[in-house]
Amino acid sequence: MATISLTTDFGTRDWFVGTMKGVILGINPRAGIVDVVHEIPSGDVRAAAFALRASYHYFPKGTVHVAIVDPGVGSNRRVIGVRTSSYSFIGPDNGLLSWALRNETIKEIRSLENPKYFLQPISRTFHGRDIFAPVAAHLSRGVALKNFGPSLTQFLRLPWPNPRIRDDRIEGQVIYVDRFGNAITNIEAASIKESGTPGACIFLEGKRFCRVGLFYQSVPQGKPLGIIGSSGFLELSVNGGNAAQEFRLGTGTAVTLRYQ
Amino acid sequence: MATISLTTDFGTRDWFVGTMKGVILGINPRAGIVDVVHEIPSGDVRAAAFALRASYHYFPKGTVHVAIVDPGVGSNRRVIGVRTSSYSFIGPDNGLLSWALRNETIKEIRSLENPKYFLQPISRTFHGRDIFAPVAAHLSRGVALKNFGPSLTQFLRLPWPNPRIRDDRIEGQVIYVDRFGNAITNIEAASIKESGTPGACIFLEGKRFCRVGLFYQSVPQGKPLGIIGSSGFLELSVNGGNAAQEFRLGTGTAVTLRYQ
Amino acid sequence: MATISLTTDFGTRDWFVGTMKGVILGINPRAGIVDVVHEIPSGDVRAAAFALRASYHYFPKGTVHVAIVDPGVGSNRRVIGVRTSSYSFIGPDNGLLSWALRNETIKEIRSLENPKYFLQPISRTFHGRDIFAPVAAHLSRGVALKNFGPSLTQFLRLPWPNPRIRDDRIEGQVIYVDRFGNAITNIEAASIKESGTPGACIFLEGKRFCRVGLFYQSVPQGKPLGIIGSSGFLELSVNGGNAAQEFRLGTGTAVTLRYQ
Repeated sequence: MATISLTTDFGTRDWFVGTMKGVILGINPRAGIVDVVHEIPSGDVRAAAFALRASYHYFPKGTVHVAIVDPGVGSNRRVIGVRTSSYSFIGPDNGLLSWALRNETIKEIRSLENPKYFLQPISRTFHGRDIFAPVAAHLSRGVALKNFGPSLTQFLRLPWPNPRIRDDRIEGQVIYVDRFGNAITNIEAASIKESGTPGACIFLEGKRFCRVGLFYQSVPQGKPLGIIGSSGFLELSVNGGNAAQEFRLGTGTAVTLRYQ
Repeated sequence: MATISLTTDFGTRDWFVGTMKGVILGINPRAGIVDVVHEIPSGDVRAAAFALRASYHYFPKGTVHVAIVDPGVGSNRRVIGVRTSSYSFIGPDNGLLSWALRNETIKEIRSLENPKYFLQPISRTFHGRDIFAPVAAHLSRGVALKNFGPSLTQFLRLPWPNPRIRDDRIEGQVIYVDRFGNAITNIEAASIKESGTPGACIFLEGKRFCRVGLFYQSVPQGKPLGIIGSSGFLELSVNGGNAAQEFRLGTGTAVTLRYQ
Repeated sequence: MATISLTTDFGTRDWFVGTMKGVILGINPRAGIVDVVHEIPSGDVRAAAFALRASYHYFPKGTVHVAIVDPGVGSNRRVIGVRTSSYSFIGPDNGLLSWALRNETIKEIRSLENPKYFLQPISRTFHGRDIFAPVAAHLSRGVALKNFGPSLTQFLRLPWPNPRIRDDRIEGQVIYVDRFGNAITNIEAASIKESGTPGACIFLEGKRFCRVGLFYQSVPQGKPLGIIGSSGFLELSVNGGNAAQEFRLGTGTAVTLRYQ
């Protein structure tokens, strides 16, 4: 059974995602469709790029990853398909796929233009249903990517916000806030000296904020800590609380980790 | 694999939808269950009727469409099954299925009464689990509709709010507001002269509101436009914004399209 | 096809649940994964315990029920697997499984410790992905529970809030409020004399509140009633309204049912 993953900002309040699944199953009744997330803030390409990067590599080899946050839908923006050594990805060419693809060995890039694989007529506003869903379904049935359109040599890449790594500190920022209010930073575990051990302090706006801990309950209930999160990045959390709300953390908030 | 689609106002905050799926898989382990939408406003039969109408025909032939917005649950309202040339539909007989069925060739209508296909005991408040789920599962396994209850000659139809079509204008109204704040009207693309081309203007309460465009980015960021949406109706949108919130549009808001 | 059910407080706003499904399908591509609910209030073990209890027995025999509300994740709290005559359950040993297990015949309890069945490296904060998902997938493929860790003789049980049953009344409390604002109490249908018949009255804080009815529409629109809900407990509802909001009912609210 081929797996198709869906990452969108379509929400689940309307029939949009369900309709895409109907289209997919009409073409490939044996597709296993998995929702990664549909609650990406409307139009937030960077949040979706991070969600895809944090999740895609946990899927079975051969999964077709579909990602759609597409403010340019209906204009002449390009739709791309990228085949790597392990997966296929399809999405608008607006950078959405680029953070996941940083870790992948790219084999083929195509501009998806062949109307043979689209639903007709193509609406102006819902390419998820009319282009992405049928293309994903055909890919999952084994149609080779080269059939979908001409080869490309590159795609749009979002700049990855690299932290500044110094001898005594790392200067980074918040790049994603999750449902629990955990503020995920761009500081990777691998870039921290003696990763995860005590002895490091986190500063916000020059003020000491908290220490790095090993798990939420290593600080008292209601207290903040830094922790290496499940995506492999330093996160700011509150044991039993919501760090982002309580300390007004959001995407872009500057975070400094200092060694003692 | 048979597909069963679910359209309800049960939400996803509780265990209701998951329980229905458990019941279905207990009867037909090979059913492929697709959520169309569960966030229909509680009791809003018309919103669900529109969601079903906008989505059902994208599903594979043979799909069993289950739709439940059922304020009369537990009273003596009827539950119906309708077989058309392409699909089966089951729902309470309160008009919920009627907008989808306007486009279908109806073959058979049944009152679903045969307790042999229900879960026992039947609760007073959750027929989704005790009646709709098991009936859908048995239908998806190939049990013929005639086994579920006596034949009917009709079902309750919600009046479809036809717009008034004049030589120089169409007078319609908003019938659904989606997650993005797009206000979907009852003005069908096919009823507009020179559909989708410039030259038409949209008026709200006698005041000029916006032009009809081809895609969101055909107007500057933050500006409103009319656009033929993916359901085949004129929608009022804001490029990168929320039209319903910004302009207080809701179900019933009068919308006039005028030719120049 | 083996069914795996998921009950968590992970929400659907982020990629957490989708990632778990990716992990499961990588190990057992034939698993049928069903979301029971992911919107349990963050850290609310009792709400999840009730949701699981209300839903698990509607699933096919052999289902692997995964339940995760786990404030102690990353500390040395135990993860347990419980096999009963009909199902397997896995969850943190914090009482989450205990209300469902009250009704089950327990065959085997294990501490899930065998790293052979975990994803490596194990994160400190997302055991749903690294421990629960792969263990559930292996169980659903038929790996015997004894392989996952040492046998236990017991697990943590949440006290079930028994109502006080008197000759002329039952004194209970609200234990769950659902999406519709129905306040589910701990008063079981079976404990009520002449269950569901008129003649019983519900009191809140000593004041007469409403009668017990047979279905929502047995009282006028907007009026409260008691009703035997789909989980088998007395619920307080408003016909067409939200009882919890209108009457400030919440978990713990004292509810007395009096016979006339």
